[in-house]
Amino acid sequence: MPPAQQLPVPDEGLRADDLREIWSFADAEEKAEGFRSLPPGEAEEFFLSLDTRAQAELLTALPANERQLWMRQLPPDDAADLCQTVAPEARDALLRLLDETTRREVSALLTYAEDEAGGLMSPRYVRLRPDMSVDEAIQYLRRAARERAETIYYIYVLDAEQRLLGVVSFRELFGAAPERAVRDVMRSDVICVREDLHQEAVANLMAESDLMAVPVVDAQGRIQGIVTVDDIVDVVREEATEDIQKIGGTAALDAPYLDVSVLGLVRKRAGWLIVLFLGQLLTASAMAYYDDAIARAVVLALFIPLIISSGGNSGSQASTLVIRALAVGEVRLRDWGRVFVRELATSLLLGLMLGAIGLLRVIWWPTRRTLYGEHFFLIGLTVAVSLVWIVVWGSIAGSMLPFVLRRFGLDPASASAPFVATLVDVTGLVIYFSVATLILTGTVL
Amino acid sequence: MPPAQQLPVPDEGLRADDLREIWSFADAEEKAEGFRSLPPGEAEEFFLSLDTRAQAELLTALPANERQLWMRQLPPDDAADLCQTVAPEARDALLRLLDETTRREVSALLTYAEDEAGGLMSPRYVRLRPDMSVDEAIQYLRRAARERAETIYYIYVLDAEQRLLGVVSFRELFGAAPERAVRDVMRSDVICVREDLHQEAVANLMAESDLMAVPVVDAQGRIQGIVTVDDIVDVVREEATEDIQKIGGTAALDAPYLDVSVLGLVRKRAGWLIVLFLGQLLTASAMAYYDDAIARAVVLALFIPLIISSGGNSGSQASTLVIRALAVGEVRLRDWGRVFVRELATSLLLGLMLGAIGLLRVIWWPTRRTLYGEHFFLIGLTVAVSLVWIVVWGSIAGSMLPFVLRRFGLDPASASAPFVATLVDVTGLVIYFSVATLILTGTVL
Repeated sequence: MPPAQQLPVPDEGLRADDLREIWSFADAEEKAEGFRSLPPGEAEEFFLSLDTRAQAELLTALPANERQLWMRQLPPDDAADLCQTVAPEARDALLRLLDETTRREVSALLTYAEDEAGGLMSPRYVRLRPDMSVDEAIQYLRRAARERAETIYYIYVLDAEQRLLGVVSFRELFGAAPERAVRDVMRSDVICVREDLHQEAVANLMAESDLMAVPVVDAQGRIQGIVTVDDIVDVVREEATEDIQKIGGTAALDAPYLDVSVLGLVRKRAGWLIVLFLGQLLTASAMAYYDDAIARAVVLALFIPLIISSGGNSGSQASTLVIRALAVGEVRLRDWGRVFVRELATSLLLGLMLGAIGLLRVIWWPTRRTLYGEHFFLIGLTVAVSLVWIVVWGSIAGSMLPFVLRRFGLDPASASAPFVATLVDVTGLVIYFSVATLILTGTVL
Repeated sequence: MPPAQQLPVPDEGLRADDLREIWSFADAEEKAEGFRSLPPGEAEEFFLSLDTRAQAELLTALPANERQLWMRQLPPDDAADLCQTVAPEARDALLRLLDETTRREVSALLTYAEDEAGGLMSPRYVRLRPDMSVDEAIQYLRRAARERAETIYYIYVLDAEQRLLGVVSFRELFGAAPERAVRDVMRSDVICVREDLHQEAVANLMAESDLMAVPVVDAQGRIQGIVTVDDIVDVVREEATEDIQKIGGTAALDAPYLDVSVLGLVRKRAGWLIVLFLGQLLTASAMAYYDDAIARAVVLALFIPLIISSGGNSGSQASTLVIRALAVGEVRLRDWGRVFVRELATSLLLGLMLGAIGLLRVIWWPTRRTLYGEHFFLIGLTVAVSLVWIVVWGSIAGSMLPFVLRRFGLDPASASAPFVATLVDVTGLVIYFSVATLILTGTVL
């Protein structure tokens, strides 16, 4: 891919780009040193472009007397995020670096969970009274533009109790006749979110409504802050990363891959890997239960990996489709019945396809008689019938598991591909040997 | 999760919310009928909130004389997307519904691929000359606010050849002294993207830089349009959905799950499922190669599912972590060596853990002598050593495959969990039986 373009800048000493280049290699002290050698304007931009974890690491590595300067560059929502990533005992020291107003704002934000609307919002929205004129409002906004509002492009109209009456975009205000009242140009059907709404739901709402900002209100309808769409881009990326990592059978890393130590990676991966391994141990027990059958017909063992993995594959298809559809709100909990019916029909067709290929593979194989014996057709039939059942079972289990998890308040993404595969492996063996017993007893068995 | 809040609106007849509720059940005619019964203001908002596919479907179902009204509601970038989703023969009819200016804009946009910066951009940005005063600029923007610019909040300063000189936010302009020249308040180190940059790279750039809009330029540095952050939210969601579906071993659905027919689902899933099945058929061949060993020691068969799935699980962990890190730009192609080393160390530790558990499971099992015979310790050792090798191999294969795919211009997300699992299953069997031959020849074998 061609890189992003940047208009040329004069070349002298260490630049932000060079620093970015070495960032994931360098230790904290090297980072601080590199950062301190940047030209001032560039340093500011660089600092603000870092993610929260990196800002916290850099701040800690800087000399104490330089921390205040950088901490005060942060808008309150970012400062709150930063405070949330450091150890609780370091938090107060950081808060003391802020000026009085910001400290109060940040402390209020710290009472919200990081992944709620309240934890995303900025308290620095612009507010107007409904009876101001458009002209007065624009004069007022000109002052706000120089101060520290997060955005002046959406303006919220409040009553005396801070309850939200309406919203007007700067552009609408700017295009309206100067003498009209704000009340008459505002829209009163405001889309807003409750402060405890989960960030994924906030993101889905903003994606659907194409808003640039959405106000956050408490239970009494009083505005608490606003969430802007640039923060939503980060939320959508973060939530997708978490889901993808869980689908892969890992705990969410919560940090860039290259920033996690090897021991950190082991910690994030060992949990699920061991759980899955213990689950797979049941396959050894299930197999032991059928070892007589295997001893009598070794040929049955040959198809075990083929059959159980087909169940795992169809299950992981179904579960990832449903996990994603639930995450973006395309499917809701009450849709489980419709999903069940669709998966049943889909998997029956898929199972029949695989079954047919499996049957042909066995009965047309050149060395079928030496490999599978005289009853090769019955062996092929066993494989085919098992495949149909296992693909159907895998798809149903894979598609319903995310609903079950969501129903009990757990994350549907935990129905990871490896988890579904393991679940289906154990039951798949039982299906396979049951079908074999049914078809082959009296001939091969 | 509590639903999004909306201030109360008077209740009368069918509302947008009711229509949304039945949307995924209804057929095209019911949708058109419901849509036509909405109050005008609500209908407009509803239409604009639909995704492109749904807009196209609705438009087609409406009477011919009503189509023009709705088609003209769309900004040029959305109109171009809509034209791209319909069949080529229907496209011209849609284009003819637009007014002259928009038709020209849309036709220009249609020359770009949908997933490039050019395919995302709006041509309706606001441009200024560098020698205008701030006051003149604001007067000019007041007119632009009433017209059809996509946003007036970022303003681009161009020379006579349309080359980008700088950018100024409305807010900066609004806060500046009225008599200053635009040239003196603009920033000249503009971050911009080339028109053929892939949308995922545009999204990564905007996520990192926290910009609300980014200009798109051609090879000569002439501005062609702008991409705004609200479109980026959709891009990030879309790309994540595609990646998740591919990681699950499905082709990207390109539509909400419940909107895809059962036959559509079968088409999207059968391809990979059959490829994986054919790959798994190799396991039957590999097993056939070792059927003598299995006949002599059925006990070996018992651990096959356990061992190969452990390789698949660790491989799917590694591949999903690397796929996501590549997608969000945390890891680049040239980092493959660092990833290799990290995965080697991580998987060795994970393999040793699973190996230890596997060994203990066999040698401490109460019925070990009846189940595994007198050489149960050697059996346990075989299982343990195989596990270490297979977990290491799975992680290395899973983590390197996305790099290989990207290197050859393919989508790293195709290194799906099921694909890696299948790859590792076949080789896993070879590893297992080789280790068994090495350890057990002379005793069990």
